[in-house]
Amino acid sequence: MKKAVVLLSGGLDSATTLAIARDQGYICYALSVDYGQRHKSELDAASQIASTLGATEHRSVSIALDVIGGSALTDENIAVPEQPDQGIPVTYVPARNTVFLSIALGWAEVLGVTDIFVGVNAVDYSGYPDCRPEFVAAFEALANLATKAGVEGERFRIHAPLIQMTKGQIVTEGMRLGVDYSLTVSCYQADEQGRACGLCDACRLRAQGFKEMGAPDPTRYQETG
Amino acid sequence: MKKAVVLLSGGLDSATTLAIARDQGYICYALSVDYGQRHKSELDAASQIASTLGATEHRSVSIALDVIGGSALTDENIAVPEQPDQGIPVTYVPARNTVFLSIALGWAEVLGVTDIFVGVNAVDYSGYPDCRPEFVAAFEALANLATKAGVEGERFRIHAPLIQMTKGQIVTEGMRLGVDYSLTVSCYQADEQGRACGLCDACRLRAQGFKEMGAPDPTRYQETG
Repeated sequence: MKKAVVLLSGGLDSATTLAIARDQGYICYALSVDYGQRHKSELDAASQIASTLGATEHRSVSIALDVIGGSALTDENIAVPEQPDQGIPVTYVPARNTVFLSIALGWAEVLGVTDIFVGVNAVDYSGYPDCRPEFVAAFEALANLATKAGVEGERFRIHAPLIQMTKGQIVTEGMRLGVDYSLTVSCYQADEQGRACGLCDACRLRAQGFKEMGAPDPTRYQETG
Repeated sequence: MKKAVVLLSGGLDSATTLAIARDQGYICYALSVDYGQRHKSELDAASQIASTLGATEHRSVSIALDVIGGSALTDENIAVPEQPDQGIPVTYVPARNTVFLSIALGWAEVLGVTDIFVGVNAVDYSGYPDCRPEFVAAFEALANLATKAGVEGERFRIHAPLIQMTKGQIVTEGMRLGVDYSLTVSCYQADEQGRACGLCDACRLRAQGFKEMGAPDPTRYQETG
């Protein structure tokens, strides 16, 4: 049986990625990262999603990225924008996906696994540099040089099945595979119950996905005054 | 003034690397990583070294790599070998330098810095895959694709000034630059006071360095029975 490590944030994209990996026949080891993000409720969501989508194991690694700050997601003095931004927005967390994939690579080595799934997407996304195909390819090249398995001739594959899909296509695929999107939390400033603000980039892209496919949006929103 | 992020473990190699970066005129931001390692005393050492070698700032990021385990340094059920090993030893921490460099990359982006120093060495070393020149080159390529600065046309440089030096040459260079090696902790199973076992790979390589250059070894060793 083939095995994979799947990065699982608890959001829409990574839940869909886990469903795709399972559908491709992988035994899945889901990995979440608690990096000091504002939206901690996504970690509770990740745990529920891992269980409902049949991950064999789910681990969560803590890393104190708030020590270096530099993002609206890790520094409480930088506000999450509630209007679309030009260029790379302040919600970009420096080197986040590099850090996440590195941890996934470490766990993959421990498990003797060479397949890693990540839910990055370069179509309906926020312009983050570490969501592009060239980034994923460069990480794959690095993985083969960085590891004992790579030195011994095994080849790592970084799977990014969503990378060329629109949000609508992602939601369609996820629903086909039985993802319960009411469990997922996308909002950058979700409250403790996982309810979304409806205003940030992540909320906007998510709502667009459901609208695009004409499906009801199961997101739970915060009440506004 | 040029600035650099310098990975500083608290051992002999990274202390020498910091001294070299300072000697090359960099304003240095020293970064340590608390990854659940056995030899926590190296983190206290890092703090003292950063201060005596004139780092402008020193930060320590915690990451729970013990959650994934798989190394004698992060899993207390795997013993540190006290004899030289064949192949890649059990003290290898899966993807450790990839994780460390990723965090350094994140801090570099926050600081607006594109130079990163790391004390990896491919001569008198333990055979870790992530200490080789091809690994460093692959990480540099990744850094330019992973980051906002890279997208905007800046170029990251990963400096590994020790990579082709013997331990003796490293010690010679460090002494020329005023590194106080009595502050550094290399041992994989150093006690709380930073005293070395004298038996592990790291101790053996370190002792060899002082012997090679005919210098007195300032290491403080644990008393043996």
